[in-house]
Amino acid sequence: MSEIPPGIFKIADAKRGDIGNTTQMYARAFFDQLDFDAITLSPYMGEDSVKPYLDYKNRWVIVLAVTSNMGAFDFQFLPIAESNEKVFEKIISTSKNWGNTDNMMYVVGATKANMLERIRELIPDHFLLVPGVGAQGGNLEEVAKYGFNSHCGLLVNSSRNIIYASNGVDFAEAAREEAKKIQKEMKILLERAELI
Amino acid sequence: MSEIPPGIFKIADAKRGDIGNTTQMYARAFFDQLDFDAITLSPYMGEDSVKPYLDYKNRWVIVLAVTSNMGAFDFQFLPIAESNEKVFEKIISTSKNWGNTDNMMYVVGATKANMLERIRELIPDHFLLVPGVGAQGGNLEEVAKYGFNSHCGLLVNSSRNIIYASNGVDFAEAAREEAKKIQKEMKILLERAELI
Repeated sequence: MSEIPPGIFKIADAKRGDIGNTTQMYARAFFDQLDFDAITLSPYMGEDSVKPYLDYKNRWVIVLAVTSNMGAFDFQFLPIAESNEKVFEKIISTSKNWGNTDNMMYVVGATKANMLERIRELIPDHFLLVPGVGAQGGNLEEVAKYGFNSHCGLLVNSSRNIIYASNGVDFAEAAREEAKKIQKEMKILLERAELI
Repeated sequence: MSEIPPGIFKIADAKRGDIGNTTQMYARAFFDQLDFDAITLSPYMGEDSVKPYLDYKNRWVIVLAVTSNMGAFDFQFLPIAESNEKVFEKIISTSKNWGNTDNMMYVVGATKANMLERIRELIPDHFLLVPGVGAQGGNLEEVAKYGFNSHCGLLVNSSRNIIYASNGVDFAEAAREEAKKIQKEMKILLERAELI
C-alpha cells in the first residue's frame, strides 16, 4: 500500500461478513495492518459481523444493500411479511442504527438506479457507493438524478472500464483517459445540480 | 498448503460473495491456485455469486443458511410475504437448484440445532457444515438428533476449542486431546444412530 499517495481514500472491496470474533480480526487486518479507510461488508450475518469495524475512528464500513449484478434479484428484493419493506430495505433500516452517517455507507448498484429514490427516503444523508457504471451498463445520469443529496452523497465507482481500457503498452494512458471521461461527466452532473 | 497431508478435505471458510466476474477469479484462486476442496459462500448476491464455483469438478460450495452467531437473528429469519418461508429457507430452496448434492452443502450453526429439523425437510440429502460446537456453545447431541440423515450428512466443525486448547508449549497435545474428545462424542452418536 506504500505506493498509494497520501490522502487517497482506499476502499477494500472485500465484501466480508463473519462472526464477531473473526470480524475483529478482519478489522485489524484491513484497518490496522493494511491501512484501508473503508471496507465493503455483506450483511447476511447481521450486527456482530459489522459492529467491530465501527469501533475504529475515521474508518468506514460500506454495507451491501442493492448490488449491481443479476443475482441481486434472487434475495435482495424479497418482500417481508407484515411490513412494507423488502429485504434490502430492512437491512438498511436496521443497520443504519449500528453506526452513523460518518462511519457507514451503503452499496447501491448503478444498474438499479431506480432504487435510489426509495433508498434516499430511508437514508437521505448517508454516502452511497455506486458500482456498475461502465462495463456493467449503469447510467451515471440516472444515478445522479436519484442519488444526489444536498452534499452530493455519492461515491461512483468504475473499475473494469478503466483498468481494462487497453491491453497494450498504452494501458496507463488509456486508463487515464477513461477515468477523465467519467470525471468530466460527473462534473457536468454536479454543476447541473448546483453541487459545485 | 503443501504441509497438509493428501486426502484431507480442505475448506476455505472465506464466506465470499461477489459479482460473477469477480467470482470466477475467486474460484480460480481458491480451487486452482490454493487447491481447496470447498469454500463457504454468503448468498446475499445470488446466483452469479455461486455458480462459477460449480463449474469445477470435485469441488464444493458451502452456502451460509443459518449462521451460529447472534447476528443471524437480524435478517436470516425474516418471514417472506405470501410464502411460508423465512429468508434462510428461501435461500436454501432457491439455491439448491443451482447445483446438486454432490457439489453443494449448507452452513447451519450448531447453536441453532432446532432449525435442523426444518432444514432436513428442505434438503434431506445435502451435507451440512455445522460450526459452533464448543466455544460458541452448540450441543453436538442435538445437532446429531436433528441433523443426521441416512448417510450421516453432517460435517461438524469445532475451531477455537481445539486450536486454543492451550497457549503453552503443550499446545499441540492439548489440541489433539480436544479433537479426540469431540471425535469420541461423535462416534458414540453415530453408533447410536446405527450409522457406523
